[in-house]
Amino acid sequence: MKQKKEKIAVVGAGLVGSLVAIYLAKRGYGVDLYERRHDMRRSGAEGGRSINLALSNRGLLPLSEVGLGEAAKKMVIPMRGRMMHSEKGALTFQAYGREDQAINSISRGGLNELLMNEAEKNGVNIHFNHRCTDIDFDNSKLFFDIDGAQKTETADIIIGADGAFSVVRGIMQKTDRFNFSQHYIEHGYKELSIPPDADGNFKLEKNALHIWPRGNYMLIALPNLDGSFTCTLFFPFEGDPSFEKLRTLQDVDQFFKATFPDARELMTTLLEDYQQNPTSSLVTVKSYPWVKNKTLIIGDASHAIVPFYGQGMNSGFEDCRILNQILDQYSDDWKTTLQVFSNTRKIDADAISDLALQNFVEMRDLVADKDFLLRKKIEAKLHELFPDRWIPLYSMVTFNEGIRYSEAMKIGKKQQAIMDQVMKTPDIHQKWELLDFRSIVDMLEV
Amino acid sequence: MKQKKEKIAVVGAGLVGSLVAIYLAKRGYGVDLYERRHDMRRSGAEGGRSINLALSNRGLLPLSEVGLGEAAKKMVIPMRGRMMHSEKGALTFQAYGREDQAINSISRGGLNELLMNEAEKNGVNIHFNHRCTDIDFDNSKLFFDIDGAQKTETADIIIGADGAFSVVRGIMQKTDRFNFSQHYIEHGYKELSIPPDADGNFKLEKNALHIWPRGNYMLIALPNLDGSFTCTLFFPFEGDPSFEKLRTLQDVDQFFKATFPDARELMTTLLEDYQQNPTSSLVTVKSYPWVKNKTLIIGDASHAIVPFYGQGMNSGFEDCRILNQILDQYSDDWKTTLQVFSNTRKIDADAISDLALQNFVEMRDLVADKDFLLRKKIEAKLHELFPDRWIPLYSMVTFNEGIRYSEAMKIGKKQQAIMDQVMKTPDIHQKWELLDFRSIVDMLEV
Repeated sequence: MKQKKEKIAVVGAGLVGSLVAIYLAKRGYGVDLYERRHDMRRSGAEGGRSINLALSNRGLLPLSEVGLGEAAKKMVIPMRGRMMHSEKGALTFQAYGREDQAINSISRGGLNELLMNEAEKNGVNIHFNHRCTDIDFDNSKLFFDIDGAQKTETADIIIGADGAFSVVRGIMQKTDRFNFSQHYIEHGYKELSIPPDADGNFKLEKNALHIWPRGNYMLIALPNLDGSFTCTLFFPFEGDPSFEKLRTLQDVDQFFKATFPDARELMTTLLEDYQQNPTSSLVTVKSYPWVKNKTLIIGDASHAIVPFYGQGMNSGFEDCRILNQILDQYSDDWKTTLQVFSNTRKIDADAISDLALQNFVEMRDLVADKDFLLRKKIEAKLHELFPDRWIPLYSMVTFNEGIRYSEAMKIGKKQQAIMDQVMKTPDIHQKWELLDFRSIVDMLEV
Repeated sequence: MKQKKEKIAVVGAGLVGSLVAIYLAKRGYGVDLYERRHDMRRSGAEGGRSINLALSNRGLLPLSEVGLGEAAKKMVIPMRGRMMHSEKGALTFQAYGREDQAINSISRGGLNELLMNEAEKNGVNIHFNHRCTDIDFDNSKLFFDIDGAQKTETADIIIGADGAFSVVRGIMQKTDRFNFSQHYIEHGYKELSIPPDADGNFKLEKNALHIWPRGNYMLIALPNLDGSFTCTLFFPFEGDPSFEKLRTLQDVDQFFKATFPDARELMTTLLEDYQQNPTSSLVTVKSYPWVKNKTLIIGDASHAIVPFYGQGMNSGFEDCRILNQILDQYSDDWKTTLQVFSNTRKIDADAISDLALQNFVEMRDLVADKDFLLRKKIEAKLHELFPDRWIPLYSMVTFNEGIRYSEAMKIGKKQQAIMDQVMKTPDIHQKWELLDFRSIVDMLEV
């Protein structure tokens, strides 16, 4: 690859910042990657972020494109479906897709280190302890604070990949005609743990995402390589029950015993975890335009979403892949690329943002609903019979990286309307296998 | 009034900041009012804000409550209705309400000076050139920059009334779980002028708000005491036609001649005005919560709206009146007052925000529509026959300060559904006077 003349500055060496830096270095650009924190590879990760994430197709494809597919796969634990836990401890398993399809539990820190290492291998200069304080969009200048000292850098292109509370976006927000919203849901979350057993083994089925759906709230658990599970309680801040209402550790203990009895027994460090780990909020961020002169914001910086579709990181990685694709298409004409990227990608970011909010209701409530489970069963059957014609919404989003989020949402709405009709069939719970599946699929084409 | 112990800091000595300072001084509080700009009474107003505004009942009532009703009325020119100008210069007048009802054109600068003077008379200390840079919500501390020097102040209660681009709100936005949105419409505006004639007289009907509705855009004109009109062109930033498309003054001249021929003749300073005056954007700001510990944001700082219902200032003044009312109700218990105020008032702020966006379509497009004009005529008749039972939406918002914005919007939706039905009556344009008006009004109570 021929060395290109433009110098690129990426702000934020998190998952998305590191990946976009690799893509651009591989295209032949000189890339500087500026990170506010110290080097996590030397001194361990800071807190405040979720410990593991669900990597799925939209995230795996870009990793493969930059040559990290195999390395990433070594770090994951595949989760083939949801394992629902009732109040009485009864288990129901629901596959996410076909037998060969799974989402993958992966350590955020581990993946971030893999990406940073690869970035450096490709010639990216990572500058740690660089806190971006201002950007001059007209002259593409970046201002940094390094432990109190001030530094100014210039670049031809600036990419803000500095997360949901992006400084770069914050500066854009002060310019005229910048649309922006940040909306917090009424739930927060707290990370807890199910440690491995005495022999270092998993205490629950390893290849599943465990859910304790409880109507207005839920507990989930994702497996880690060390035999533990990281649990997350998604719970209202106020009301009854809520974080506010659980005042003492005794309240916490009682609540878990009554509500998640099977989990409580396995959560041997519950009370310490509950006390030590922060209660964090959940925000949806939307913004537009994503481009100011030669500065672009991507990933959480431009479109942070709630975690309920497991698509935050995946959509950010997809941003990088699409950006790279458009650079191909327009032969590295950045002016056109930045416009085309943000015009097309905004629609998809909005779609996954809405889908993620909707999926919270599904996860915490509907997955325990008899009608909902039957719907899923019928849709799985439709998919089995007509694999290319009826792809359930979850599968389109999670396993079909060729379908845009916005397209998936559109088709999903059509499917929902059809399934609403189907579910009105008399005695549907008994007779669903007798449905005329072909005519159902045909309705999609109307 | 007994002197109260709490010290109050108000940030922003604009219209709302000055008024709330008066209210609180009259309650016996020590009030400090901090203003970023210099004293406009000494050195003239800065640009960038609209020159005149439409003061209506919701704004007049609070002014009367603080004893400024008569003084304000001396500064206004009543506008009893809309005067629509067609492309061919044909005029159509549409009354806003009953004969005794009008909205009032008033100078922003003049009214602001009146309020500042009154604030000082009531013992408010106004501190100019004080740019608020930070607030410590936990300790109710304010940080200012005064021509480069730093100053810290404390207060028991802080009120941020510092406008659509509020610094106080900006600081709140960085705290956890603060919901916020800023949304720009695709239109901007530019202020222009129709100077008085050689004898100093108005060149157009004085007691009207003039509108040149042109579908996707419009020109409006409000009278000033000096015989001039301030015109505002509300126009798309991009597209055809748009600000972007009018590249030369010749383009501007041709466009005005073709589109607003009768106005063009009167706008003798059009080309200078067009060149000198900025093109400004139009933003809707929503936020919540409005309270952080003992700091409250009010007026545009918490809910900036587009100007198409003429309610920006009026809703801000109403904020002050409601705040004062709740202080009465809870005997100056600030903790309760701040909660009750923002809980109840947020709903009304959202309502007028949406109504203002909707009214743009009405003003720029529908007022030139035959069906729309008939609707208005029928509604006026309903109001005449049943003055307490059918109050048109515009009147509820503009002339009925006893009806909350949210209530007006709710009733307005009901009225619209009823009128949609009424307009389906065969030959309605010929036979509308034969309608059974009582049965129409009865439908409201269903």
